[in-house]
Amino acid sequence: MNEDRPIDALNNSRGSRVLLKLKNGTEMSGTLKAHDLHLNMWLGDVEIKKEDETTKYKNMLIRGDTVLYIIP
Amino acid sequence: MNEDRPIDALNNSRGSRVLLKLKNGTEMSGTLKAHDLHLNMWLGDVEIKKEDETTKYKNMLIRGDTVLYIIP
Amino acid sequence: MNEDRPIDALNNSRGSRVLLKLKNGTEMSGTLKAHDLHLNMWLGDVEIKKEDETTKYKNMLIRGDTVLYIIP
Amino acid sequence: MNEDRPIDALNNSRGSRVLLKLKNGTEMSGTLKAHDLHLNMWLGDVEIKKEDETTKYKNMLIRGDTVLYIIP
Amino acid sequence: MNEDRPIDALNNSRGSRVLLKLKNGTEMSGTLKAHDLHLNMWLGDVEIKKEDETTKYKNMLIRGDTVLYIIP
Amino acid sequence: MNEDRPIDALNNSRGSRVLLKLKNGTEMSGTLKAHDLHLNMWLGDVEIKKEDETTKYKNMLIRGDTVLYIIP
Amino acid sequence: MNEDRPIDALNNSRGSRVLLKLKNGTEMSGTLKAHDLHLNMWLGDVEIKKEDETTKYKNMLIRGDTVLYIIP
Repeated sequence: MNEDRPIDALNNSRGSRVLLKLKNGTEMSGTLKAHDLHLNMWLGDVEIKKEDETTKYKNMLIRGDTVLYIIP
Repeated sequence: MNEDRPIDALNNSRGSRVLLKLKNGTEMSGTLKAHDLHLNMWLGDVEIKKEDETTKYKNMLIRGDTVLYIIP
Repeated sequence: MNEDRPIDALNNSRGSRVLLKLKNGTEMSGTLKAHDLHLNMWLGDVEIKKEDETTKYKNMLIRGDTVLYIIP
Repeated sequence: MNEDRPIDALNNSRGSRVLLKLKNGTEMSGTLKAHDLHLNMWLGDVEIKKEDETTKYKNMLIRGDTVLYIIP
Repeated sequence: MNEDRPIDALNNSRGSRVLLKLKNGTEMSGTLKAHDLHLNMWLGDVEIKKEDETTKYKNMLIRGDTVLYIIP
Repeated sequence: MNEDRPIDALNNSRGSRVLLKLKNGTEMSGTLKAHDLHLNMWLGDVEIKKEDETTKYKNMLIRGDTVLYIIP
Repeated sequence: MNEDRPIDALNNSRGSRVLLKLKNGTEMSGTLKAHDLHLNMWLGDVEIKKEDETTKYKNMLIRGDTVLYIIP
């Protein structure tokens, strides 16, 4: 891992499931297909859980500035 | 897909319907006509759903910094 | 339309009425006289509707970072 | 008017009274003495109205990022 | 006064008392010792008034992005 | 320590536990594996405490603009 | 003091106690060990007071954009 470029470590998660926590509290999971240095991400097979409900989307482009953290 | 430029993947959605979720919670759908790297978008045949009401606009320019995610 | 520059499409609205929705929820309409890439806009014959009241201004300069979307 | 530089149109208001609406809802009026592209402004003979009270200041420097719109 | 550089007009207030209003509503006064283009300021003999209480500080460095306006 | 580059001092915490306080009030601890100048961080063995509950994650990428402070 | 670079005046506080007020209202004191132009700071022997409670940390890296003002 390049210790000065933490976002590069996301490269190892390409094609794998990641868990996302957004600044507004939303949690979602998806398959990471692409990302850039702003944490803009292209996700596949997304699931957004909210209380008892789960919403599913085949693909999603998420704006990086809304992200709190990413769990690979 | 260029894995380092997730926003480029929106090019495949030109002319197709996309679903938008904004940071203020608003959901809308429209036909993607143009977009840039800030996610500023030009949309056609927009529908904004709010509870039981649907508002329709023929065209809309939306400011990218208000976007949470885009579903192609 | 240049598909990579959605804001340029506003050029076609110069001299026409546009509807604006701001991030604080305010809606207003006006004649678009000038705009830049930040969506700073110079508007003429502005009407701001708020419940039953309408306030009118002959000219207005609006700061682009307050804009949610523009309806041409 | 240069249609790509809406802020330049404020030059015509130098020495005249302008009405300001700030993002926090405050309204004030003053004589525009100087401004820059961020909408930082130097105002003279400022009046801030708040319910029944009016506060007056001989001069004020206002930070541009707090501005919602300007009425010349 | 250089009409395109309103912040430069603060130079005339060096060594004088200024009144500050911050974005969080706080009001304070102090002697302006130094400032930059972001409105970062070094103030002397600062007084912060809050209801009936006045807090005094000999020196203060204030971050410019918290400033709403400055009264010279 | 380079006194003009406080973030560089985090280099001494590589491989050690750090405590994080986020702007939304969340507290978490983890092993610092990588960081950049925006305070984007890659953490291992993360524990998020919230009242009586502790959530654990093996790895986490956290967006730097959500950080309030870091305790090495 | 360089009047155009107010943040440089913090150099005189290296090794001394400073009082910090954050944008979220938190007050803390510490020994200033390092700072940069964004007001990122490395502090030693930090004390955070909150009502009757005082929390102490041996070292802290604080993100500059959370700072309201600094009292040397």
